[in-house]
Amino acid sequence: MSSFKPYLKVPALRLGHTHVPNLVEPRGFMFISTSDLGRRPVARCDALGSAPFSEDAHILNRPYLTDSHRKALERVKAWMIAANMSVRLDPVGNMIGRYEGLSPGAPALLIGSHIDTVNDGGRYDGALGIMLGVEAVEALANKGKRLPFAIEVIAFGDEEGSRFPASMLCSRAIVEGIDPAQLKLSDERGVTLAEALSEFGLDPAEVAKAARRPGEVLAYVEAHIEQGPVLEAENLPIGVVTGIAAQLRLKATFKGVAGHAGTSPMHLRRDAVAAAAEAVLAVERICRAGPPDLRGTVGRFRTGTMAYNVIAGEAEIGIDLRAATNHVRDGAAEVIKSELEAIAAARGVGIDFVVVQDLAACPCDPRLIAVMSEAVAAVGVRPFELLSGAGHDALTVSALAPVAMLFIRCEGGISHNAAEKVNPADVDVACRALIEFVERLGEVSL
Amino acid sequence: MSSFKPYLKVPALRLGHTHVPNLVEPRGFMFISTSDLGRRPVARCDALGSAPFSEDAHILNRPYLTDSHRKALERVKAWMIAANMSVRLDPVGNMIGRYEGLSPGAPALLIGSHIDTVNDGGRYDGALGIMLGVEAVEALANKGKRLPFAIEVIAFGDEEGSRFPASMLCSRAIVEGIDPAQLKLSDERGVTLAEALSEFGLDPAEVAKAARRPGEVLAYVEAHIEQGPVLEAENLPIGVVTGIAAQLRLKATFKGVAGHAGTSPMHLRRDAVAAAAEAVLAVERICRAGPPDLRGTVGRFRTGTMAYNVIAGEAEIGIDLRAATNHVRDGAAEVIKSELEAIAAARGVGIDFVVVQDLAACPCDPRLIAVMSEAVAAVGVRPFELLSGAGHDALTVSALAPVAMLFIRCEGGISHNAAEKVNPADVDVACRALIEFVERLGEVSL
Repeated sequence: MSSFKPYLKVPALRLGHTHVPNLVEPRGFMFISTSDLGRRPVARCDALGSAPFSEDAHILNRPYLTDSHRKALERVKAWMIAANMSVRLDPVGNMIGRYEGLSPGAPALLIGSHIDTVNDGGRYDGALGIMLGVEAVEALANKGKRLPFAIEVIAFGDEEGSRFPASMLCSRAIVEGIDPAQLKLSDERGVTLAEALSEFGLDPAEVAKAARRPGEVLAYVEAHIEQGPVLEAENLPIGVVTGIAAQLRLKATFKGVAGHAGTSPMHLRRDAVAAAAEAVLAVERICRAGPPDLRGTVGRFRTGTMAYNVIAGEAEIGIDLRAATNHVRDGAAEVIKSELEAIAAARGVGIDFVVVQDLAACPCDPRLIAVMSEAVAAVGVRPFELLSGAGHDALTVSALAPVAMLFIRCEGGISHNAAEKVNPADVDVACRALIEFVERLGEVSL
Repeated sequence: MSSFKPYLKVPALRLGHTHVPNLVEPRGFMFISTSDLGRRPVARCDALGSAPFSEDAHILNRPYLTDSHRKALERVKAWMIAANMSVRLDPVGNMIGRYEGLSPGAPALLIGSHIDTVNDGGRYDGALGIMLGVEAVEALANKGKRLPFAIEVIAFGDEEGSRFPASMLCSRAIVEGIDPAQLKLSDERGVTLAEALSEFGLDPAEVAKAARRPGEVLAYVEAHIEQGPVLEAENLPIGVVTGIAAQLRLKATFKGVAGHAGTSPMHLRRDAVAAAAEAVLAVERICRAGPPDLRGTVGRFRTGTMAYNVIAGEAEIGIDLRAATNHVRDGAAEVIKSELEAIAAARGVGIDFVVVQDLAACPCDPRLIAVMSEAVAAVGVRPFELLSGAGHDALTVSALAPVAMLFIRCEGGISHNAAEKVNPADVDVACRALIEFVERLGEVSL
């Protein structure tokens, strides 16, 4: 039994007039906040939600290795120090705060997420998980609680592919460093990753040293907004993630014959845009007909000329496919490819596929799922399991250590959008569950 | 009877081993070329087909009021002078060569087309019509032939909207000058039309003086590549244009709800790209089902984010509609709009239409069509009438004077493309028909 437990067994005071979570015992005993563990993480994300923590004065845009990234890390560092952590910047720009366990130098439980944002992103995607880690450590420190393991809170520099054409660069770096070939990746202005690291004060020759030795890391846990509508539909503040969906990104390029919009009779055309439009609807139809965990999206649609008066000779669509298992995803991909080939053939248009990204499904660790479910129940919420359709740093870190994730409800499921919103009451519940998880982890052997 | 006629009534020598046009009397008497009137116009277009007559070293791109435009005009000027014309640059940058008629200062037949190109365009779109005018005048001059009217060959500076967001600026200018408001239009680099005129050595305050008095202009004739496949399908080198199709450009913007590709179940989406894809297919279906002269094209398809992992909250398509009559075009537009509104409504997506361009149908002058048909028959080709689906300078000039057009077959109907190609034998036939047209026009009263 953790020393934290009794603290939760008193009647609710605060939640009654804000948001009432779906509780195991809705009319029985509830937790209260002697201190609110939700408001501060939310306020900190909000504080980082605009310039100088954004490259843009009007929207939130915090790419990796930019001035806004550096300024955000300065704040995170100060918050980590205030939470009794020792802080270091690793060779790829990850900010790491360490809270020692009962014996110094013990393997660490990593609690992390990313500090970068998409362009015109929301304030909680990534950042909230870091703030919850800091909050949980500060709560433990305030109680003088030490565990059999250290805790390291980590703010990954890049998860979104926010500056260079590669995502999860920094969580992958703690597994295996950065491939020297990737140091040559360049951003939209032609600045390479190596140059950007140097400008940030880091040494590109040292990036391999970001990799952690497996023995150093006990497990990884990430709290993150759901970025989807499931918890809201279930009327639950938080949920236990079972794993991260398999992802496949396919680029399909249709090659027709460019022509003049006014002079080519309808029946003589080989219109690449029309073929691609049929393909968009085929992806939608096939994925709607599949199992509920199958998702197919065309978010990119590019035409060769973008002119009103030109029949497009080329059109490209980007297809994003996800499912709980590789099997379901790959089955759908095969059906889609053959359907698109038939569409192209019927129109006398060429088609070409390129696999842009292929990420296998990543199950969370069953023992950690069990501990997390207990932690969620302990804070009075019905443990509800759900799949993450989105990729997260946990996906890459799973190659280094067992991983767990806790999802937090976000309004309307909206994310990658300035309208991203969380309820501080939900975040309070999440923080308590995270603390429960950490303390319970001290009682099991992994 | 023109002095040129006998010259055409001798057996074929040259065409037998190249391309044989579809002739009225395929096995009887044919014209020959004592001089080939096709090779030089084609060679001149080819000579202007690359730097320094293009802004780009690798593709043909000759926008209005650029250095490549100036250099092309220097060549055109030299060719006009060599063809016995007096030459002037008008206040908007149109190069005009004048060949006086029997009495100096007589009203002029204008023979023209445009010298600008689309980005990555072909060598013959526009330029060929100018070269044919020069060639026809030189042939007349070589025979010492003067007509009851002057001939002016005109190289319009802008037809394509090649630099500023307005097309046919220069043919409209000879009708009514340039609207002072349009002088503020700016190119992609922010340079205004007024600034560009000044840099070109022209005075923006003088643009109104480009307008011609109606009494000065007898008629306008334009030879142009067909930019479509009809003449090729008819196996004819040239065709008589009956008019220019009515055009309508509509921008349709779909507004859905942006979301994460991995987290939003298929049935909860309001996907703007899927709605726009359905719209593309609806435009195609409606225009295929309409009369043969109805054409509908979606050449522009833009998504809000262009990211694989984002369900697009916004998508925009550009719809180009054309028909021989305003009536058919507008009827199709109404059907399309209501169909697209239904598609949007069924998906819970908003839709908004903007009319980007609305050009009424422009019939060619019936008397000029008759003269052109006689001229075509006189050079041994079956007179074949066709509609121009594309807009041309003749469309704007029709507000000033009666217009006629002669189309020249182009390979595969391909235009607005580096692969644009004409057969010099077809151009030879076109040049002879143009000379016939001019000489016959001297015998009729307009």
